[in-house]
Amino acid sequence: MESVTPSAMAEATTSSSNQQTLGNSNNQQALVFMTDFGLRDGAVAAMKGVALAVEARLALFDLTHEIPAFQVWEGAYRLYQTVGYWQAGTVFVVVVDPGVGMSRKSLAVKTDSGQMIVCPDNGLLTWLAPKLQAIYEIDEEQQRLPGSSDSYTFLGRDLYAYVGAKLASGQLKLEQIGPSLKEINKLNVQTPQLHDGCLSGMIPVLDIQFGNIWSNIPKHWLEQLGLSLGDHIDVRILEGEVMRYHGQLPYVRSFGAVANGEGLLYVNSLLDVALGLHCDNFARRHGIGSGVGWSIELRRV
Amino acid sequence: MESVTPSAMAEATTSSSNQQTLGNSNNQQALVFMTDFGLRDGAVAAMKGVALAVEARLALFDLTHEIPAFQVWEGAYRLYQTVGYWQAGTVFVVVVDPGVGMSRKSLAVKTDSGQMIVCPDNGLLTWLAPKLQAIYEIDEEQQRLPGSSDSYTFLGRDLYAYVGAKLASGQLKLEQIGPSLKEINKLNVQTPQLHDGCLSGMIPVLDIQFGNIWSNIPKHWLEQLGLSLGDHIDVRILEGEVMRYHGQLPYVRSFGAVANGEGLLYVNSLLDVALGLHCDNFARRHGIGSGVGWSIELRRV
Amino acid sequence: MESVTPSAMAEATTSSSNQQTLGNSNNQQALVFMTDFGLRDGAVAAMKGVALAVEARLALFDLTHEIPAFQVWEGAYRLYQTVGYWQAGTVFVVVVDPGVGMSRKSLAVKTDSGQMIVCPDNGLLTWLAPKLQAIYEIDEEQQRLPGSSDSYTFLGRDLYAYVGAKLASGQLKLEQIGPSLKEINKLNVQTPQLHDGCLSGMIPVLDIQFGNIWSNIPKHWLEQLGLSLGDHIDVRILEGEVMRYHGQLPYVRSFGAVANGEGLLYVNSLLDVALGLHCDNFARRHGIGSGVGWSIELRRV
Repeated sequence: MESVTPSAMAEATTSSSNQQTLGNSNNQQALVFMTDFGLRDGAVAAMKGVALAVEARLALFDLTHEIPAFQVWEGAYRLYQTVGYWQAGTVFVVVVDPGVGMSRKSLAVKTDSGQMIVCPDNGLLTWLAPKLQAIYEIDEEQQRLPGSSDSYTFLGRDLYAYVGAKLASGQLKLEQIGPSLKEINKLNVQTPQLHDGCLSGMIPVLDIQFGNIWSNIPKHWLEQLGLSLGDHIDVRILEGEVMRYHGQLPYVRSFGAVANGEGLLYVNSLLDVALGLHCDNFARRHGIGSGVGWSIELRRV
Repeated sequence: MESVTPSAMAEATTSSSNQQTLGNSNNQQALVFMTDFGLRDGAVAAMKGVALAVEARLALFDLTHEIPAFQVWEGAYRLYQTVGYWQAGTVFVVVVDPGVGMSRKSLAVKTDSGQMIVCPDNGLLTWLAPKLQAIYEIDEEQQRLPGSSDSYTFLGRDLYAYVGAKLASGQLKLEQIGPSLKEINKLNVQTPQLHDGCLSGMIPVLDIQFGNIWSNIPKHWLEQLGLSLGDHIDVRILEGEVMRYHGQLPYVRSFGAVANGEGLLYVNSLLDVALGLHCDNFARRHGIGSGVGWSIELRRV
Repeated sequence: MESVTPSAMAEATTSSSNQQTLGNSNNQQALVFMTDFGLRDGAVAAMKGVALAVEARLALFDLTHEIPAFQVWEGAYRLYQTVGYWQAGTVFVVVVDPGVGMSRKSLAVKTDSGQMIVCPDNGLLTWLAPKLQAIYEIDEEQQRLPGSSDSYTFLGRDLYAYVGAKLASGQLKLEQIGPSLKEINKLNVQTPQLHDGCLSGMIPVLDIQFGNIWSNIPKHWLEQLGLSLGDHIDVRILEGEVMRYHGQLPYVRSFGAVANGEGLLYVNSLLDVALGLHCDNFARRHGIGSGVGWSIELRRV
């Protein structure tokens, strides 16, 4: 059985509908925002106002604005988790930018499935890197919001929202945005491994609302280890070299297969291995985090 | 004086405007999302991407995504509180689903005033049950997002958003969605009573941002107890058998009628009896909660 | 060098695009909501439903709903911070209303740059007052949502959203809304001063997500004090008469100019003087607040 990626799902959906042709004047061109700005002040609304001034008919959406401040790692995963479910032609404006005003580049890229992303070159595209078909550096002097040259600390408004709206509306082509690039900055990801009967990977992110643990180990690797639904699996979670959790969990389809409060191993909505507690919070209960240094090991019982 | 229900208000508004005819190509078809997913990750955005892949011209809105995790009781009231203010033809996608992956049914229903709701059959429709004109069970095998059959834990994306978008866009008729049902699951609501001069009811929910106490006692019952504006009322709040608050409050129109920090009894925006403290938080100040077990008693002084 | 105001920026943007003509049927008429309601319940969604019942084709947006409960001061600044980035014809519905149900007036106003705002007359327009070209009092009996006359505590839904939607859709002209006014209520703002080599002003608000300190001292006043990029500046922050911070900070363009954790003085996205710590939170680290009583003093070293 093949693993179904988000992009594959989006394609499946698209193919059942022929109403998304870009350039159709009845169509909404979608612009999706993701930041670490929160929603307590006017920053996101200023970005949206700028985008609508470029083209009043754009359809604006939010991925999330609750990326913890400066956490590029988490932003990169939230973006990867979501992009594939949006139509070709959708533009994402992504701003998690601890280096604002420093020398890092600004990027505009296109994925294999046709979505575009505008963001700083600081690792936000780590997980999507294998799926990029085109990468351009934004010429920050040429492309910024007219009248904003005295402002150095809000590129989300003055550059990214403005350029994203130009792209989404078709006023600017991706190729016109600046020089083409071969390389982007990426975070250090630990790829899954199967070694001596131990299947290991990392915990890139938590399913934060419910406290489930998400790994980067694809479902089909479980089968390579000879595991199938109903088996019990030996699970270890490490932070660096320190073991933070050790237990045996049943591999089941969903939460309802175990009693309230009991643990389970399941395949999450991205078809990767995940851990949870039915109607409880695994991460909080066991003190588990995510990102750099957090790894997971699975073995047959 | 008749109690004005939200639906009645929506009708009053609708009748003053003739621009909502469904099927008009200039019209936005509204799809409204409510979940307990929060907005810190990509889950809600994935649902929206799936909906727009079905029909790019849908207008997407959020009721709230801050229902506390697994709290069907609170979700049910937030839905009831809001549905009647939206136009006939609006579709609500509602996901508070502690039993995801278990055997409970999935529903698509239509209210007397023409709004449709897609949700699990776990009590979310408790308060709207008397106002439903049609109930269908969603055939989960037939209606789900193509390519999602390996995913068992995100029916919000794979089933509810997809079916909601099909309904809102008119690609699917309610009658085509699966078998018709007579019964749905409901939470155990304590209906208001007037007995020996004591008017009692429950506290289904708090006006959470401001800490006001909302009952399910309609305004016109106050008149049956012989109470009118300006009267003082003896108020008791119980959690099970334990009295958590006892005081006398003036029955006034709004907060400004009492001094800062003083208590009041008023008729809330759903025309039910409510309690508050002017520029303060009644629930926090007196340790009051809501839902199962929380009741209120009113008596003439 | 002239200070570039948000409105000036919006004009610069507008002039580069001719697609915003009001009345164009392809155009979305934008209605932007700001409240202290939070997003945990159905209040904001009820307002939006009411607006769409007036005109289903309105485009609805959120400025923020996370103004702290009853904090008119903060609401006034968030509004000022954002309005100028939105197109002429945009209508803002603003509800931070501790005096709901009291005798304060309700307003509908138009700015010099053509945006309209509907709100209570309680100081929310303090910062925008010099830029208003027309002020009207809303006739609350004539203009409210039909069927809502028994509801006294949710004017956001029953009055402001309803009137805002009528204005945005063109069903109601500003001049028809009620009597014209000359005066509005304003909060007590401390204007910037340069006196004996000390440049002083207030801290109207924090850049709340990142903990930066925002003053109301425009950039060009720094030049009047003879300061330029690279200079060190003596900075004092007072709460009333008590000094809460005293230090010397370099005047730089952006965060990247100093090491992680180091302080800086910069010009913020509204082109006013601001303070920050690179990848840290100045306000939390030094216990700084905002609003009434919080002032800042700058001197040459």
